[in-house]
Amino acid sequence: MMNITAPVRHTNYSLNPGDELNDLRMSEQVRPLCDRVRKFIRETVQPISAEIEKLPENKADRWSFTPAHLELIEKAKSKAKAEGLWNFFLPNAHTGEGMKNLDFAYIAAELGKDLLAPEAMNCGAPDTGNMEVLERIGTPEQKEKWLKPLLNGQIRSAYAMTEPNVASSDAKNISTTAKLVGDEWVINGEKYFIFGAGDPRCKIMIVMVKTSPDAPPSKQQSQILVPKDTPGVEIIGPMHVFGQDHAPRGHMHLRFNNVRVPKENILFGEGRGFEISQIRLGPGRIHHCMRIIGKAEKALDMMVRRGLTREAFGKKIARLGVNLQMIALARCEIEAMRLMVLKAAKAMDVLGNKETRVWVSMINAMVPERASRIIDQAIQMHGATGISNWTPLAEMYTDVRQLRMTDGPDEVHWMVVGRHELSME
Amino acid sequence: MMNITAPVRHTNYSLNPGDELNDLRMSEQVRPLCDRVRKFIRETVQPISAEIEKLPENKADRWSFTPAHLELIEKAKSKAKAEGLWNFFLPNAHTGEGMKNLDFAYIAAELGKDLLAPEAMNCGAPDTGNMEVLERIGTPEQKEKWLKPLLNGQIRSAYAMTEPNVASSDAKNISTTAKLVGDEWVINGEKYFIFGAGDPRCKIMIVMVKTSPDAPPSKQQSQILVPKDTPGVEIIGPMHVFGQDHAPRGHMHLRFNNVRVPKENILFGEGRGFEISQIRLGPGRIHHCMRIIGKAEKALDMMVRRGLTREAFGKKIARLGVNLQMIALARCEIEAMRLMVLKAAKAMDVLGNKETRVWVSMINAMVPERASRIIDQAIQMHGATGISNWTPLAEMYTDVRQLRMTDGPDEVHWMVVGRHELSME
Amino acid sequence: MMNITAPVRHTNYSLNPGDELNDLRMSEQVRPLCDRVRKFIRETVQPISAEIEKLPENKADRWSFTPAHLELIEKAKSKAKAEGLWNFFLPNAHTGEGMKNLDFAYIAAELGKDLLAPEAMNCGAPDTGNMEVLERIGTPEQKEKWLKPLLNGQIRSAYAMTEPNVASSDAKNISTTAKLVGDEWVINGEKYFIFGAGDPRCKIMIVMVKTSPDAPPSKQQSQILVPKDTPGVEIIGPMHVFGQDHAPRGHMHLRFNNVRVPKENILFGEGRGFEISQIRLGPGRIHHCMRIIGKAEKALDMMVRRGLTREAFGKKIARLGVNLQMIALARCEIEAMRLMVLKAAKAMDVLGNKETRVWVSMINAMVPERASRIIDQAIQMHGATGISNWTPLAEMYTDVRQLRMTDGPDEVHWMVVGRHELSME
Amino acid sequence: MMNITAPVRHTNYSLNPGDELNDLRMSEQVRPLCDRVRKFIRETVQPISAEIEKLPENKADRWSFTPAHLELIEKAKSKAKAEGLWNFFLPNAHTGEGMKNLDFAYIAAELGKDLLAPEAMNCGAPDTGNMEVLERIGTPEQKEKWLKPLLNGQIRSAYAMTEPNVASSDAKNISTTAKLVGDEWVINGEKYFIFGAGDPRCKIMIVMVKTSPDAPPSKQQSQILVPKDTPGVEIIGPMHVFGQDHAPRGHMHLRFNNVRVPKENILFGEGRGFEISQIRLGPGRIHHCMRIIGKAEKALDMMVRRGLTREAFGKKIARLGVNLQMIALARCEIEAMRLMVLKAAKAMDVLGNKETRVWVSMINAMVPERASRIIDQAIQMHGATGISNWTPLAEMYTDVRQLRMTDGPDEVHWMVVGRHELSME
Repeated sequence: MMNITAPVRHTNYSLNPGDELNDLRMSEQVRPLCDRVRKFIRETVQPISAEIEKLPENKADRWSFTPAHLELIEKAKSKAKAEGLWNFFLPNAHTGEGMKNLDFAYIAAELGKDLLAPEAMNCGAPDTGNMEVLERIGTPEQKEKWLKPLLNGQIRSAYAMTEPNVASSDAKNISTTAKLVGDEWVINGEKYFIFGAGDPRCKIMIVMVKTSPDAPPSKQQSQILVPKDTPGVEIIGPMHVFGQDHAPRGHMHLRFNNVRVPKENILFGEGRGFEISQIRLGPGRIHHCMRIIGKAEKALDMMVRRGLTREAFGKKIARLGVNLQMIALARCEIEAMRLMVLKAAKAMDVLGNKETRVWVSMINAMVPERASRIIDQAIQMHGATGISNWTPLAEMYTDVRQLRMTDGPDEVHWMVVGRHELSME
Repeated sequence: MMNITAPVRHTNYSLNPGDELNDLRMSEQVRPLCDRVRKFIRETVQPISAEIEKLPENKADRWSFTPAHLELIEKAKSKAKAEGLWNFFLPNAHTGEGMKNLDFAYIAAELGKDLLAPEAMNCGAPDTGNMEVLERIGTPEQKEKWLKPLLNGQIRSAYAMTEPNVASSDAKNISTTAKLVGDEWVINGEKYFIFGAGDPRCKIMIVMVKTSPDAPPSKQQSQILVPKDTPGVEIIGPMHVFGQDHAPRGHMHLRFNNVRVPKENILFGEGRGFEISQIRLGPGRIHHCMRIIGKAEKALDMMVRRGLTREAFGKKIARLGVNLQMIALARCEIEAMRLMVLKAAKAMDVLGNKETRVWVSMINAMVPERASRIIDQAIQMHGATGISNWTPLAEMYTDVRQLRMTDGPDEVHWMVVGRHELSME
Repeated sequence: MMNITAPVRHTNYSLNPGDELNDLRMSEQVRPLCDRVRKFIRETVQPISAEIEKLPENKADRWSFTPAHLELIEKAKSKAKAEGLWNFFLPNAHTGEGMKNLDFAYIAAELGKDLLAPEAMNCGAPDTGNMEVLERIGTPEQKEKWLKPLLNGQIRSAYAMTEPNVASSDAKNISTTAKLVGDEWVINGEKYFIFGAGDPRCKIMIVMVKTSPDAPPSKQQSQILVPKDTPGVEIIGPMHVFGQDHAPRGHMHLRFNNVRVPKENILFGEGRGFEISQIRLGPGRIHHCMRIIGKAEKALDMMVRRGLTREAFGKKIARLGVNLQMIALARCEIEAMRLMVLKAAKAMDVLGNKETRVWVSMINAMVPERASRIIDQAIQMHGATGISNWTPLAEMYTDVRQLRMTDGPDEVHWMVVGRHELSME
Repeated sequence: MMNITAPVRHTNYSLNPGDELNDLRMSEQVRPLCDRVRKFIRETVQPISAEIEKLPENKADRWSFTPAHLELIEKAKSKAKAEGLWNFFLPNAHTGEGMKNLDFAYIAAELGKDLLAPEAMNCGAPDTGNMEVLERIGTPEQKEKWLKPLLNGQIRSAYAMTEPNVASSDAKNISTTAKLVGDEWVINGEKYFIFGAGDPRCKIMIVMVKTSPDAPPSKQQSQILVPKDTPGVEIIGPMHVFGQDHAPRGHMHLRFNNVRVPKENILFGEGRGFEISQIRLGPGRIHHCMRIIGKAEKALDMMVRRGLTREAFGKKIARLGVNLQMIALARCEIEAMRLMVLKAAKAMDVLGNKETRVWVSMINAMVPERASRIIDQAIQMHGATGISNWTPLAEMYTDVRQLRMTDGPDEVHWMVVGRHELSME
């Protein structure tokens, strides 16, 4: 007979369960900042967003901004700077101390309420990740040349990781190569779904490349700075997402044709590509998750309103069939997801990025899928209106659905969590 | 203690379980026709479709067809006529006998393989339903004026049922009114998601209206013929489906502003709107379901190919994690859905539309949802490529997702099945 | 077009999201107590449990304890008393202050690790709930007569609520009546699944009855003290749970045949039955949920061990097919459930039972169902062994499955959550 | 860009979809037999079953039948023989022709309606499979000695395949060995969950053993006849299923301690164990599936009755919340499962067992899991009554749940279906 009396394994989850890791409050000192961000979005950003919404489409060139559009964006940015709501996400260069991940998670929930908000306060993806990386491991020259204008909001950036021809969710498959020829790296390969690379203001890209094919698998990759205007950088065109090209920002399909950049453009050193990924991915994913939860909350809100204003078969549809239970389930899932993301953020603050990897994978595996489902149910409760241009639901759906793949497919996150569980034995 | 010994209820499902209803073969006489349809699609329609695919976009007016486009469509139609593959879906006017639903289900599976195929053989929605209705209950004048050109493929038609301002899935909620003023019906109201109404060749619409608000609930509605060019018919614009407008066909948003049509334009008689719905909905839904199953089969096929050509973490992705089980489950669901649709078609042939309503609701509740799920899993297995314009999966998804609402929301179909089950007691 | 710009509703969930409600740590002062409880269970209770396990079955009378069995139970109890680990769950009678729900949630997780632990420390169901009710709203006489021996561990008690003949999940349906005849309540009716009523040491029951059929629906019920040996209290027999009778404790089926108790036996006053339910149900459910999570954790642990020690088709079964994802999902669900229960407990501490009702329903709707699923998956990964007497999994399953109904069916909890969501509009 | 224009693979599923394989009617000639079976069960078997139900428990020896019990069983058997309803499942020894699988599927649905029915007509598991194997590949001596008394209903038999110490779902793992020593096979090993081996009338077992460890993996196993009374056959005891031992039949735990049987007891030849499995498993599983569908139908029936007779929150519970949709979904799943099983049976008749393996795995993967879910929902709709001894639901649940493992775990069936799908490429 099997031995069933062995004690349950002690895990980093259950050890000291009531300790600091379970204090999920925002810190006292960040609370006023969070209030100011919330107020700034409501009073400044949202009115500017509404103006932008009313601007005529740029039919001449969908892939550039009209001057009126750019002016409104810059207006929001300069107001944010004036109020000191600028770059607050960034760790202090000298002390290494920055905003706690837990605190930023709360702020990210606010930023998610308006599409313009992150850019207005210079904390939009992928710039935040790129700035964070440059701040932590950039050379003084790299900082001067690229971090400074990014911090000033003068340029934007892209992060080129995903490839069309391999399963790049297993980063070891990366096939874009960079070879050192004299004093230059010569880059060849293809990337796709590169967010923001179509934005005319994007000037610099961090590109994941294979530099050392003969090194151990986790030391073969490097990250390298490639100015977008380098000869050989070919923007083939936008990838559509459920038929949309999202001009003028887009998710670009790029080809690197013998692109040459100086030797110094490598970040952190050859073969350290994966180490850099650890810096950027954790916090970014927490912020993504909080934004997604914001969308799920919005979808639930729309379900409730719709459910209370429509009638069929003699009843408000909120009370018809499975709808009430769908609403209740959405509430439970949202609250559970929120607590999980806060706990992951806290774990990052207390235990560091590496120890927290499994928590980050847990929320990445859970949040986009469950939020997709909630938004899908909100669509269903709106009938045909739900997939139309009369509600934001269809766009919310495709946006979140996309994140089930482009931020690492669900399946890889489940694998990370599962393997961690096995390894605790 | 409860009585648990009562015999299980006898139902129309389980009575004579092995009888004629379970003979789901295509009839011998239709088999050659089905072969000819399959061959015609492969050899004639698909090449023409490929030519159409290569035509330049009609940038001048997205809401009309270019002459080259129209010419290709007409070419396919005249070839079909020449081969006698034209209007074969239609019951014989004199004998009342037509193709069996079961047989047409098999043919519908073939028609679903090419977007142009249904129109080429004059059996595309919503024309088939409209022609069937006119054939069965139209007056000689109505047949002469509208059925004849429809049968000749000279014009197209629309069916205007869904409304934006009420839950029209409960058809009793229909709010568009038609009032008899002198010899004319005066129509006022709003409809949306009216498929094909934007096609410049669409000349006639059948419109569901409320004519008799004081009659019993199921006798208040009528269906009425409204020529699209009647003054007061306002095409407000296309409804987007997940951001796409599907020009030049589209799903139109219409308003009827004091639209006047002659008294004789009413179909079948005042208050008989629901009776007409019974004629059109059953067979049409069976065909829809077979088309959707065709898409699910295509998605499964793409999953398998992808799964066998990509590798990650040292394995073909078809063998990674849950993927193999997803593939197996898709196969099971597809086979089960196919058998259910065939049985529903057979039941329609044997028991008639009315007795078969519950079967039609069963397949409508099952098929679009499960096919959506299969396509979604195929998307997931393709990574970001799956939502891009590099595969048809995103479009297949939105197309099928849409049918979970526009052909009656899943929830209404579940309700019909559930109520039927309760009523058998 | 619908108004989609209205702000998302402010809810008690999202208001001040980072405040005190999110501090889910155990309090500093309770931490040592929790450690002592953990140590006491490990060093004292578990060895005694193991001795009990080895006792021969009481074949003569399965519905009584053997003297050896009783002696061992009493030994555990006197050791707990000696260590001061006795009745610590109870609020102070004078100050009204007791252990925080959040703190007790952590302790409940420990208590769940051994079946004997709760009784050993006099905090087993349903005695805790009964003692809490008596403590808060009992008269001095009621306290003297019943609370005192309960607090001393001299007797045990039962709570008779569920009825076989009505859907008593809607408590308004309660059909057992109590009529005042002279100075006595005369009780008639039937109850079932009354846990602990078969225990020979059970001396007193709190019975939910209908006293005031003409009052408003929420004022018709009362709770009343009925000594088990009162004439007319008929124990018909045990209810089986998946075929088990759980002698000598059992879930009893009772009939009240003209049972007469003194007028003073009513608790809190006529028509206040629902108010009393509020006192008992909230905290009890939080403790239940923590125990269930403990079982889910045990099931996950067994899945991992089994998965790493069995091989099939050339691989450890933990890495076969969907198993790794099942393991990962179980971990995510467990962590999310734990955080939700802690938050519900905290909400009870901060906002009070009434405001927290929706949180209690959220965890009751989520936890037993998801834990059932996790245990079921652990069974599946054990093959036939999983349902056999070689593992505790089958018993864990039926135990948790049962709680999806006997502690209020899932459906009622979903309804409470859904209605609350609608009412926030 | 990927090639998306390749034609969908042609599969054995979709080829000639309307042909003979889709004729799922019972054959004309079997129809009268099916009617007679139905009548015999209703008029003869069920009354005898009811008498057996009322017999007092055999407290003296739970593992034997009382004479009264045996007498009633024999009475049913002799009546069946008298009516010619005996052994009708069996293929003709000379012509090789037997009842079609499709026809027997319909009859199996009838047999599933009473626990005694299969034994009464000598077509109960595992005897049918054992007789079929002996009939097809037994030697004249084996037939004379074991098939004859089995066909006469004088003895019963068991099939010993599953092992406790390995994942025997991968049959290559079988660890019970048989070594040829002189003229005898010497068998050592352990088996468990051997159904019927506890029945005192069981005289013979077919045991799966490893005879040729050095042969290729699929040629290492053999099946061998072992009389139950052979020295060294040790019945360790019954395996419990969710706490039940199912005396006097039970699922036995056996050990073979140097069990010696004559060389001639091997079936079909050394190393042909897997070939024999193909003979027995296919048809048996189809019959299992039909029986399970019968249980699902019974559960749905009970859901409907309960739903229409209970009220809560002012409504019949069938119309409350998700219940109506659960009922509708159950109906859809039952009809889809039934068609799938009939199609698998037909495929077996037309294509043979080997080609049909994927169909058998499809129904084994779908049917027990979905039926479990339907029964579980019926339990939920009955509240605590559903898990009690007042309904058969709890027993139905554990019975079907068990088949998700003991007849090959779901996961293995999914794997077979998935691999087949990949291999069609």
